[in-house]
Amino acid sequence: MNTRQIVLASRPKGLPTEQNFRFENIELAEIQTNEVLLEGMYYSVDPYMRGRMNDTKSYTPPFQIDQPIEGGVIARVVETKSSNFKPGDIVLGGLPWREKIIATEKNLQKIDTTIAPASYYLGLLGMPGLTAYFGLMHIGKPVAGETVVVSGAAGAVGIVVGQIAKIQGCRVIGIAGSDEKTALLKSEFGFDETINYNTCIDLKKAIAELCPDGVDIYFDNVGGSISDAVISNINFHARIPLCGQISLYNNTEQPVGPRLQPMLLTRSVLLQGFIITNFQSRFPEGIQHLAQWAMEGKLKFTETIVHGFDQLPTALIGLFKGDNTGKMIVQA
Amino acid sequence: MNTRQIVLASRPKGLPTEQNFRFENIELAEIQTNEVLLEGMYYSVDPYMRGRMNDTKSYTPPFQIDQPIEGGVIARVVETKSSNFKPGDIVLGGLPWREKIIATEKNLQKIDTTIAPASYYLGLLGMPGLTAYFGLMHIGKPVAGETVVVSGAAGAVGIVVGQIAKIQGCRVIGIAGSDEKTALLKSEFGFDETINYNTCIDLKKAIAELCPDGVDIYFDNVGGSISDAVISNINFHARIPLCGQISLYNNTEQPVGPRLQPMLLTRSVLLQGFIITNFQSRFPEGIQHLAQWAMEGKLKFTETIVHGFDQLPTALIGLFKGDNTGKMIVQA
Repeated sequence: MNTRQIVLASRPKGLPTEQNFRFENIELAEIQTNEVLLEGMYYSVDPYMRGRMNDTKSYTPPFQIDQPIEGGVIARVVETKSSNFKPGDIVLGGLPWREKIIATEKNLQKIDTTIAPASYYLGLLGMPGLTAYFGLMHIGKPVAGETVVVSGAAGAVGIVVGQIAKIQGCRVIGIAGSDEKTALLKSEFGFDETINYNTCIDLKKAIAELCPDGVDIYFDNVGGSISDAVISNINFHARIPLCGQISLYNNTEQPVGPRLQPMLLTRSVLLQGFIITNFQSRFPEGIQHLAQWAMEGKLKFTETIVHGFDQLPTALIGLFKGDNTGKMIVQA
Repeated sequence: MNTRQIVLASRPKGLPTEQNFRFENIELAEIQTNEVLLEGMYYSVDPYMRGRMNDTKSYTPPFQIDQPIEGGVIARVVETKSSNFKPGDIVLGGLPWREKIIATEKNLQKIDTTIAPASYYLGLLGMPGLTAYFGLMHIGKPVAGETVVVSGAAGAVGIVVGQIAKIQGCRVIGIAGSDEKTALLKSEFGFDETINYNTCIDLKKAIAELCPDGVDIYFDNVGGSISDAVISNINFHARIPLCGQISLYNNTEQPVGPRLQPMLLTRSVLLQGFIITNFQSRFPEGIQHLAQWAMEGKLKFTETIVHGFDQLPTALIGLFKGDNTGKMIVQA
């Protein structure tokens, strides 16, 4: 049986281009015991994948040249030689970018599409939602009345962070890159105030004005000069969950900026880098809270769904241009 | 009664000079109820005092122009109208730089000079020792077998950090600014390896070679390019107690350097700025451990004692030139 796959053709320098990817037709083998044949439904594109396109040591191994890109995929079981899965089951796994995929049962997890749309398992109930939950609750440790600033606020993680902070009784300021996004953050997701960093002339001053009591928690998804502006308004004993640095992922040279340590020192600030797998043993706690808040209507979610397996490289590149609001997903 | 005092004559730009200080003769009033008259014995000079010479918001209020410098002082009670203190008692307090000092009883603490020399209450059993203890034990959380790097290793805090890390079973690398200091760190204080940053050509490489398993705890007293070199060798799940940034205290412009957040993020590193008063409620725990280790001979200490009240400005300035090994103190 034939299928198409998308491989890493070359490692990008700076922003990835379509030329860094290559579509191929490959022949799939017959499935073996404990394996299933899957048809891909939803493919996740996430900022962290940019790091895997480099050949550098990080928390996930780099993608290999001429090998398929891998990421979160929701798929339907078509054929099965596993007693755990029957045809028609909807599963989630870290899987190669192929239209049809052979996977071993231990790499798959059945999902319940009666409580949430299948694609939500790549977003609100998946990696981004859990990242928001654990980063905010276990590192940020919000206290009612505190001021929380979120960068990348209209992204898959940011919209969840802002809403959880509101549930905790905090005042929430979101930073995003367009007026459409900032309007949505206020109207749909309950953010108290927002800043469009693309039109704001003095970000440091704007944050100071919107945060008269200073910033107690800065949930950092973007890094760079936006973070400099927030941190210049940071409070004594503030916490900075360091979740993403998307503004720097395509830099080809070592980025340089103001040294932050003197400020972090004199104000007794905690900065904690994290990735979601650090919290793996506590995922059930996170999923339970996220699902319950969602059912109670306190936690909303949004997706930017791009149609067509062909669009996967374009969608991934689009993350770095701010093309998405909420979770960016490619539907096959 | 007359005495001399040292006031802040002007705020320094960059490294302080003698011209930023002024000696004055003043008339002291009679002591009132609950007050004592003190004769200063040992005056502490500490890097944090540089920050108080600026007119900027920090964890301690700035020194005021034409007002005396204040710091840790060990003094002898000469006259007393306090039932808590009798003549001859040796006390510790945050006091003005005067040869004779009137103080209220609530700002003073009697010290026991039978268990340690009086000056140790400004060092090993005082602020620097407690800073080392709480920064390493409560933020660094050392585990036997881990690699600990200390910058400013020959300073009052650094020598204690290194020895406590050894007591905890860690491998300890100290960075200091002269061959005399690095030799002493190994011969006297049990550091496993040392680096003289003034003669080392490639600090990043030197640290990599001395830390083949990476750096698990970086106790940062200095900041700047030394810290950049250490952090480029930082391990996954490392901890960085952010204690001092002495290399930057005299900068007149916003210091700039490589952005560290991407590294701290991908390696899940914790960085925690702190000042010792954050741990005030736990001081008895710290003093008990420090005193016990000292009595058991596991924890040694050293001082650079400068003689003469006149020398206070010079001694303070000397901290930023690396004039001290261990605790810098001025003996009246």
